[in-house]
Order: sequence, then structure tokens, then C-alpha cells
Amino acid sequence: MIGAGLIGYGYWGPNLLRNLARSGRFRVQAVAERQADRLEAARSALPGLAGHLDALELIDRADVDALVIATPVATHFALARRAIERGKHVLVEKPMCRTSAECEELIALATERGVTLMVDHTFLFTGAVHKLRELSSSGALGKISYYDSLRVNLGLFQPDVNVLWDLAPHDFSILDHVIGVEPLHIEATGYCHLNPELPDIAYLTLHCARGLIAHFNLSWMSPAKVRRIAIGGDRRMVVWDDLDREEKIRIYDSGIRVHSEAERLTAMPEYRIGDIHSPRVPNAEALAGVVRHFADVIEARDRPMMSGEHGLRVVRMLEAAQTSLDANLARIRGLLSSAA
Amino acid sequence: MIGAGLIGYGYWGPNLLRNLARSGRFRVQAVAERQADRLEAARSALPGLAGHLDALELIDRADVDALVIATPVATHFALARRAIERGKHVLVEKPMCRTSAECEELIALATERGVTLMVDHTFLFTGAVHKLRELSSSGALGKISYYDSLRVNLGLFQPDVNVLWDLAPHDFSILDHVIGVEPLHIEATGYCHLNPELPDIAYLTLHCARGLIAHFNLSWMSPAKVRRIAIGGDRRMVVWDDLDREEKIRIYDSGIRVHSEAERLTAMPEYRIGDIHSPRVPNAEALAGVVRHFADVIEARDRPMMSGEHGLRVVRMLEAAQTSLDANLARIRGLLSSAA
Amino acid sequence: MIGAGLIGYGYWGPNLLRNLARSGRFRVQAVAERQADRLEAARSALPGLAGHLDALELIDRADVDALVIATPVATHFALARRAIERGKHVLVEKPMCRTSAECEELIALATERGVTLMVDHTFLFTGAVHKLRELSSSGALGKISYYDSLRVNLGLFQPDVNVLWDLAPHDFSILDHVIGVEPLHIEATGYCHLNPELPDIAYLTLHCARGLIAHFNLSWMSPAKVRRIAIGGDRRMVVWDDLDREEKIRIYDSGIRVHSEAERLTAMPEYRIGDIHSPRVPNAEALAGVVRHFADVIEARDRPMMSGEHGLRVVRMLEAAQTSLDANLARIRGLLSSAA
Amino acid sequence: MIGAGLIGYGYWGPNLLRNLARSGRFRVQAVAERQADRLEAARSALPGLAGHLDALELIDRADVDALVIATPVATHFALARRAIERGKHVLVEKPMCRTSAECEELIALATERGVTLMVDHTFLFTGAVHKLRELSSSGALGKISYYDSLRVNLGLFQPDVNVLWDLAPHDFSILDHVIGVEPLHIEATGYCHLNPELPDIAYLTLHCARGLIAHFNLSWMSPAKVRRIAIGGDRRMVVWDDLDREEKIRIYDSGIRVHSEAERLTAMPEYRIGDIHSPRVPNAEALAGVVRHFADVIEARDRPMMSGEHGLRVVRMLEAAQTSLDANLARIRGLLSSAA
Repeated sequence: MIGAGLIGYGYWGPNLLRNLARSGRFRVQAVAERQADRLEAARSALPGLAGHLDALELIDRADVDALVIATPVATHFALARRAIERGKHVLVEKPMCRTSAECEELIALATERGVTLMVDHTFLFTGAVHKLRELSSSGALGKISYYDSLRVNLGLFQPDVNVLWDLAPHDFSILDHVIGVEPLHIEATGYCHLNPELPDIAYLTLHCARGLIAHFNLSWMSPAKVRRIAIGGDRRMVVWDDLDREEKIRIYDSGIRVHSEAERLTAMPEYRIGDIHSPRVPNAEALAGVVRHFADVIEARDRPMMSGEHGLRVVRMLEAAQTSLDANLARIRGLLSSAA
Repeated sequence: MIGAGLIGYGYWGPNLLRNLARSGRFRVQAVAERQADRLEAARSALPGLAGHLDALELIDRADVDALVIATPVATHFALARRAIERGKHVLVEKPMCRTSAECEELIALATERGVTLMVDHTFLFTGAVHKLRELSSSGALGKISYYDSLRVNLGLFQPDVNVLWDLAPHDFSILDHVIGVEPLHIEATGYCHLNPELPDIAYLTLHCARGLIAHFNLSWMSPAKVRRIAIGGDRRMVVWDDLDREEKIRIYDSGIRVHSEAERLTAMPEYRIGDIHSPRVPNAEALAGVVRHFADVIEARDRPMMSGEHGLRVVRMLEAAQTSLDANLARIRGLLSSAA
Repeated sequence: MIGAGLIGYGYWGPNLLRNLARSGRFRVQAVAERQADRLEAARSALPGLAGHLDALELIDRADVDALVIATPVATHFALARRAIERGKHVLVEKPMCRTSAECEELIALATERGVTLMVDHTFLFTGAVHKLRELSSSGALGKISYYDSLRVNLGLFQPDVNVLWDLAPHDFSILDHVIGVEPLHIEATGYCHLNPELPDIAYLTLHCARGLIAHFNLSWMSPAKVRRIAIGGDRRMVVWDDLDREEKIRIYDSGIRVHSEAERLTAMPEYRIGDIHSPRVPNAEALAGVVRHFADVIEARDRPMMSGEHGLRVVRMLEAAQTSLDANLARIRGLLSSAA
Repeated sequence: MIGAGLIGYGYWGPNLLRNLARSGRFRVQAVAERQADRLEAARSALPGLAGHLDALELIDRADVDALVIATPVATHFALARRAIERGKHVLVEKPMCRTSAECEELIALATERGVTLMVDHTFLFTGAVHKLRELSSSGALGKISYYDSLRVNLGLFQPDVNVLWDLAPHDFSILDHVIGVEPLHIEATGYCHLNPELPDIAYLTLHCARGLIAHFNLSWMSPAKVRRIAIGGDRRMVVWDDLDREEKIRIYDSGIRVHSEAERLTAMPEYRIGDIHSPRVPNAEALAGVVRHFADVIEARDRPMMSGEHGLRVVRMLEAAQTSLDANLARIRGLLSSAA
């Protein structure tokens, strides 16, 4: 059993605590949380747990070898650095840090100290993403042409992130894990309806190598929650509707045969419309798999599936998208003022 | 009864012919169509119909007062101009013309000759759009923040249009008719997977006055057909799923109270999540309404709901989107070549 | 081309006329219809058609070799008998006749005169039923345990039939064609809410050989239209939702291994829950296939798929169900009076 | 805080324990469970809990005033009687007992001893049933004509109940609570596919006063889980789809005006088809409400909403349905043997 400590007991903390306790791999020694009532809630959920108002005390505990950091993103870097410096293994919530520079520093430090650094992109441990990766890597989809995500809901606005940093990490992480490409160019636009500093709607387009185009429609302003991702290849296309109870994944046995460069200008594309196949997707809680994997890689001194490098690539995409979004928002603001 | 002639008997022609014949308002005298077998098909569908391989002969017929033009878009301008010059009323398929200059010339000419010029944006005569306009203009939605359209299918590639000119006219027309705003700025991006000259995926974002943002996801590469439009206001939001048999329109009694400028920086937005209401939407064929309206405005010398000016505004948006799309495609092409 | 005549131009008549005219196999000579305005409607739909107010005149026409009978069920027998006696081929709407005795007489007469007698159970020519029959006869479903149909809508009450005779012929015909079993026992119950003589809700249970149980929930009182049929076997189960645009047929790769008699009392059943497969079901109009088949069997002097014997088996089930329904309704009426 | 004990820690036990512990109204002192490993599971879920292998020991504990019985139905009577005799309050799982005689004896005993006797028909505390009762009792539905339930799944066969006793208690309880009628006559049929003694499919029809007909389609053999209840009145009709995430309840503003007895034979019924309204249904866990209500009625010495009498009425319906089912199964078995 690995001695573990949890920092942060907000929205996601209770899920982490429950899964750590049930895993049979970690002995959770203590939790750190600034708000006394939340700290009390953690302690009553797991009798015998030590409580700290100050996270640094927890990091320094001798009976803690692994730290799980579930605090606001602005604090990830400092807490993770301290933990790694003390030789502790770290599982940090997504997004990994505020900047790619911070991510790079943590990665270097973890390598130097020989500890595990893992980012909790929970979605990668769902049955649906596992199936998507299998479809992609086996060649079942053929050459992939597009990734299209509609990820909207009536947002619980978080005080320290905008809609991009709230919702895009899921898609960036899935894109990196399932298709494994890095974008050559990112365009982002959107709008701030409610708080002039905080975009609540964002549209992103990523242009990648080999003609892959990825598009994300992200919104905190939709009363109907939608989680719909379509991935199209020239052999098959797949739609993942995460809110569909019975058929989360639909594989369309339809493709568009892409003609050779020579044929292209003369021939019409050929369509094939066929059956739909909906594979059974296991319903196990993804976070249980994350926690198990964290224990596995610590013990085997292995490289985690959701490594610091993976987290870094996600943050790099967030940075690029934010830069484009800022430029566009400034331009729009200018147009709107001159129109008014 | 108004003497009518139909030019073009391709995909949409049979629907126009059937509705003209059934309307009880038009006596269809003749059809013009270049392909002899299609012309024959038209004549056997409506016994007694005269047939012309040359549209100009049809335009010049003395027994024809109104012309319905359902040919490829590149021919709209020349045919409509000739008809108006001969003093005939014109109903032309969408999009109205290839350029806004052509649209403007037709509008001026029709005014000068005192004939009706109408554009067949059929969707405006559906029960669903009628309901959306009512919701928008009555204030039931409140101040409108966004319009979001997912309009994708496995495309029947048309030889002379790209995905933008094929699918966006619907949304531009609905946006103009239902909300009545003109965009200040249009951003478009996309990709050409199958034919290097013909985008098959396009993403558009329109920035309009008063903070309205409109976004269209258009694709010919989706095996699952989707027609989903969401419009969000600060009082209510509405989702129109045109393929839902039972509940085409869902009105969400949810809103986000937008705080005043002063409050914005401090206060959190307030959400209200409530009931869903699905009004009955009549199922009548929209094209029958279009044909009836065309007869009405001819006889009353009235201004049509889908006027030349409406058609012009749609074409202006298409032009602006195409300009942005071209620029983006060129930039992406450059990035991809240097990456290769 | 076979000379054809249509008797009856009510709800279904226009569809028959259109498909006969388009088939390229029949020359429709005349239509007979008692109501002058409906007769006029038929003649304007197909210019050149002769019209008769008296069906007997039509039957006697020398240029008519095949008759299509689409009148109320009470008139089927007399009209079909007369036609067969005159040596004409007959396609009669479902249900075939009011009684099995009438059906038997028509079958004998048609055999004697060597003419085709076919019943228009249109559903059998849909892609969905074709697929179900294939699944059943190929053994893909295994041993079939149940057939369960939910067939409800807000009824267009017909003056001369109750909900049983309106809706059950579809299920009886499908059951006979797809599974091919005859019931050993039929139980029916229901209620007359609107007209004390006319059941508007009926529940039927058919017990068949080899443990197959079939159940039909039929109603004219449901605001939500449902057409859902489930067929369960020990290898696979299938759900046919006729109103689902994209996935009409879902095949569940789930089964329950039925234990041998000896094992049954001790062992627990074994479940297998697997993938869902939704085969593409062609969307062609079923009635076009019916009309084509009618021409084929006339010309080949072949036995039709929807023979008089098939129609007879359906009417026998209707009779048995009606007998049980009458007995139950009488019993319930007695209970309600004594309770009042 | 009321001292409480839980008897039985099988499928439902963990949910009861969690809700009792969280309620803030009960101090859970002990759990009784025959299987040692399950007992251990209970004790590790709530540290400090006493464990008994023998339920009678738990019943006799001085620190326990209220007992929650979640054992197989065959044991409910003996355990509840013992508890009531010792002056303890009892919450017993549904169905209340095996026979109505047992129910009656418990009711009489609880009245005599002045203790609370409540049956856990959890569904009555869902937001959906609350809404249905409100619609029914406010007259919004008008005079109710039918109740129609499709409740099917791939059954977890329970060793000691058949599909009727497993699934019908939900519908019987809802029918009693929402509409409040008792059946005059119950017909039941079905089949035993897997175990000759245990029906796995059952169809029930209840005929009630004032023309209400209720029908339940219950099955353990359906790979697609369905929970769909329709209730039709002459003013409005409602469909409750418990698996629909967004719109559990749909109210159809459609009705059928029932004509007076005199009009009935001549007039056609009048239909009104209107809008659909989907009220927001709170998502709170129903069992938390059950536990809270149990505490409330104990403290207020009030009558529980789910009283012994309610449980008794449900068991009476189960008995009547079982009698009819037995008779029908015997008849079918005879027919199948003679047919073989």
C-alpha cells in the first residue's frame, strides 16, 4: 500500500478520495483543504483521516509517498513542484498547469528526482475513449479527416477559468491520445456575454498534418447539455454521444473514398452508406482506473499513460488557442465599439 | 390564374412543378430544360405541358407572366434579367445569384419594371421558422446572445457549389428573417478533403451588433445527418431539431440574467433552469406556401416576404464568408506544405 | 402491360393509383368510386382514366384483367367474388374479408378459375420486414421466445372497424410471414371508451407452439404514436422501431441460454449482453413492390407471397381475437354495472 | 436521533444504510445479515456498526427503536411481527408480505402497539411520481381512461420471486398512489421460458371502476431496458419515460372529448392535438426522502404515505394477478401438451 495524501476537497475531491480509499492500493493518510468545513466533510467521509489546513504540511508528511492535487489550476505548479522536490509521486488534476513553461519545469524536475508525474485526464480511462483509440489505431477508421466536438451545457461558471480552459482540455487530451497529432495552427473565436473578461462561448479549429481538421464548439450557455464527438475517416466514421445510455458509440460503416490527386479534379467522390454498429462500452467508473494506473506506474517505475508530456501538449494547445481567442476578442470588441 | 413557366427540371424542379400545378393560382404553360430526358419527364408528369430545350423561348412566351427559375446558380442572373426585361415576375431558387452586384442589378431592374422578384428560401415557410420568428419578435427569448447551427450530412456533392454555398444559405436566410441582424464581421475556415478546389467542411462565425454571435458547422462528410439549430436569449433558449418527428422545437425555460456593466465584474451570473415546452409545429409542405405567396404578391403588387433584398443580404454574407474561407484555406495550404 | 381497374378511392386509393400508374406493368383503365367528388379527384390525378360510380360496371370492362379493391372491408367479399367469377385477377386490401368463411370461398373460387388472388398486406414489402424474416429464417435469432408489439396512436376512428380490425392485421401478417406459426390460443381484452360498441383499446396475447408467446398492445387513445416490435430469441433479440429515422432495426447480440429441462430447476439462466447492430434498411416505397409483385405473379401464373391463404390465416386470428374480446368485454360490462 | 437497525445487506441494503447514515435523523446501531462476508462489507462501509448474524438479536437490542427490513419477501412477515411485538417501528421493503393475510395481521398488530408500519415503495418519492400525482389529483388530466406500463429488461432472475412479484409492485403502488383506484377484475397471462415454475414474461390487465383500464407488460427477457408509463385522460395525456435524461415526463395537450351516452352512438369523437410540455423533475435520490419520511412519521406519530394499508392493497393485487396467471399458465400448458 502506498501512503497517499489528497490536496483539495472541492468538486472533484470527494470522487478522488472515494476511489483512493476503495482501490486497495493506497492508504490515504491525510487531506489538506483551506476551508475548514470542507476539511471536516472529508474527515467524516473517511474516518481516521488526518486533516491539514496548510497543504505544505501535508506534502512534508513522512507517511505520504504520493500526492493527489485537486486544487484550482493556478496552484498546481507550486504544489506539484514542492511535492516532487520532496521526492513524492504526483497525480495532478487537468489542466496540468497555467503555462507550458510550468509544465516543462515539472517534467524536468520529476525526471531528475525519479518520481512519477501523472495528469488526471479522467476521460482517457473511459470505455468510450478506449474504444475510439482502438478504432483509430487499428486502422478501422482509415485515414482520419476530421474530429468534431459539440461540448455545451449551462455552465457552472468557475471563478478562475474561462470556457476554453474548462471544456477544451477534454477534447485536446482525447485528440492527442486517440489520434496522436499535434496541430500546426489553431484558430479560436468566441464571446464574453456575462463577464467581459471571461469568454463563455468559444469555437476552436485546429489544422493538423495530413489534412486532419479538428473543431470544438464549447459553450456555457446551452440549456440542453450535449457531449457529441464525431470522428470521420475514409473507411468508417464514428459518433460518440456520451449522454446516450444505450448506444454511446455508433460506428457508421460509411466512408468517402478519397480519390488520388489526379482523379480528384474530374471524378465525383464515391459514397458508401452502410450499417451502424454500436459496440458495448463497459460502464466502469473511469476514475477507479486512473487511481489503479497511478499505483501501477509508481510500483513498476513505469511511464504513465497520462504523462507530464501528455499534460504539456494539452497546455500548449490551450495556450495557442488562448492567444488566438484573445486576438479575435480584441478585434471584435473594436468592431462593436465603432459600430455602436 | 397566372400563366407560369418553369425553367430547370433537376432535383428541385419536380417539387416546384407539383406545387405550381396544385396551387389553383397558376396555369403552368411550359417547362424549359436542356436535357431532353428530363424535359420528357416533366411533360409526362403534367400532361399538356409545352416543352422547350431553350429557356429563352420559354421566357418570351406570351402566355407566361411568371417564371420560376430552378437552374444552377451560375445561370440565375442572366435568366432572371431577361425575364424581368420582358416584364415577367420572377421566383428564383436560392442562392439568388453568384455575386451581390448581380443581385443589386436584378433588384433595380425589377423595381424599374414594376415586377415581382422573389427568392425561394423555402425554409422560411416552414412551421418551425414561423415559430422561431414569433419567439424572437415577441420578446419571448429576451435579448438574443447566440445562434448555433449544426448542419451536416453525407453530401451529394454538387458540381458547381462548395459546402458553403450549398448549406449556408439556409442559415443566413433564417438568421436574417428570424433575428434580423447583419454581421459586422465573418470568419470562415474549413478544409477540402476530396477536391482541392471545393471545401467540403466549413466552420463560420458571424459577429453581429449587440453581442450576438452566430456559428455554423457545415459538412458534407458526416454519415449521420444532423439539422440542429440552437438560439439562446437571456429569457429563454430554443433548440430546433428538424429531424425530430415529434418535437421539432423545444423551448427551454432557462435563461441567464445578464448583469449590468457595473455588476458584471463582481457578481456571478444567475441561472434559471426550468421546464421544456414543445409547441405543435404544423407539418404542411413549405413549398406550397411559397407558391401561394408568390401568387399573392403578384396579384396584390405587394412586397414578398423573401424579397430580392433578402436574397441580396444572404449573398453578401456568402461573399464575405467565401473571402475569409479563401484566405484561411490559402494559409493552411501554406502551413501544410512547409510541414510536409 | 396488364389492364387494371381500381375500386375505391378513399384513404389508400391515391397511393395505389400512383403506384399502379408508375409501375410500367399496368395500364390503369378505370376507377370506380361511389362518391362523385372522390371519383373526380381520381380522374384529375391521372388524366385519361375512365370513371364509374358503380363498381360492377368496372369489373365487367373487357379492357380490365386485374382489379385492385380498396373499399371498406364489408364489401371486399362481394366485389372480389364477382371479379374472380369474371376471370379477373384480384388484389384486395387487408383485412381480406369479414369472415374466414368468405376468405375460404374466394380462395376456392380463384383456384377453380385459375386467377391470382392476392391480399395487400403492404408491410410485408418493407425493408424492415424483409430483414426480420431473414433474421428469423436464417437462425440468427435462435429459437424465438416472444413477439411483442406496441402499436398505438391517436386514432382516426374508422366507422366500420374497431381498433382490433384496424391495427392487428399488421402484426398478424408479420407474425405469419416472419415467424410462420399459428396460435393455439388467443386471449383478448380491452375497453370501449368512446363508443360502447367499438373497442378503442385492445390487448391480445397469442400462445403458440414451442413456447412462443406473442403480445399486441393496440390503442387509438395514445397521443404519442409508437410502432415498436420486439422479437426475442435465445441467440439474439431484435427491436424494430418503425418511426426511428436512422436505426429502424436494432439487433441485440444478447441472448438467454435456455437450459435443458433437467438443468432448469437447479441452474440459473445465463445471460450474454453484447453489441448492438443496426443494419441499413432500404427506404423504397413498399407499395411499389406490392404492385410489381402482383404483376409478376399474374404473368408467371405464380403463387403470390401474400396469398389468399395468408389473408385467411390473418382473418382467422382476427375472428378468434374478436370472440375472446367480446366475451371479456361482456364480463367487464357486467362487473362495472354491479359495481356502480 | 432515532436508534435504527438494518436487517439484510443484499442488493438494496447498501443504499438503505447510506441514506440512513446521511439522514441526520437516525443513529444506525447495528446490521443483521446471515452471510458473514456481506455483514463484514456493511461494517466496513460504516465504521462502528455492530454486526449480528441473527436478526432476532438485532430486533431485541435496547438501543434500536426502528427497524428497516430488506430481506427476501418470504421473511418479511416473521421479522416485522417480532419487531412490532417488541414495540419497534418498522420500514419493510416491497412487496410487504407474501399474502394479504400476513399484511392484515401486521397492520392490526402495529395499530395495537402504536408503532409506525411503513412499506418502502421507493418510487413514490421520486419527482416523477410526485408530478404524476399532482397532474392526476388537480384534474389536469381530466377523467382518466387508461394506465399503460411497459417495464422490461434483461432480468437479474431472483431465486424467490417471479417477474410478477419482481416488477408489478412498482406499477401497483404507483396506480394506487397516483390514481387511487382498486381493480374490479384482474386478468394475467404470461410464460415460463427458462424455469417451468417461474414466469419470466407476464401481461396484466386491470379493469377498474369508471372505465379505467390498466395494462402492464412485464418481462425479464428484453435486452433493451424500457420504463415507459402512459396515462391518458380526456383532457391531457402523459408519458413518463424514466430512462430519458432530459424529458422524463411529457404532458400531451391532447385529449379525446368523451361524448355523453346519448351522443356516443351517432357522433364521432373529437380529437385535440396540441403542444407537449415537459416539466422539470427534480433529480434528488428518492430513498433519501423515504428515510426522512420514516423519521418524520415516527416523531409525529403520524400516518405514513406508504402505510401498511397501501402495502396491503399492492399485495392484494399481486395475489389476484397470481391467481389469474396460474390458471392461464395451466391452461396453456395443457394446450401445448395436446398440441405436441
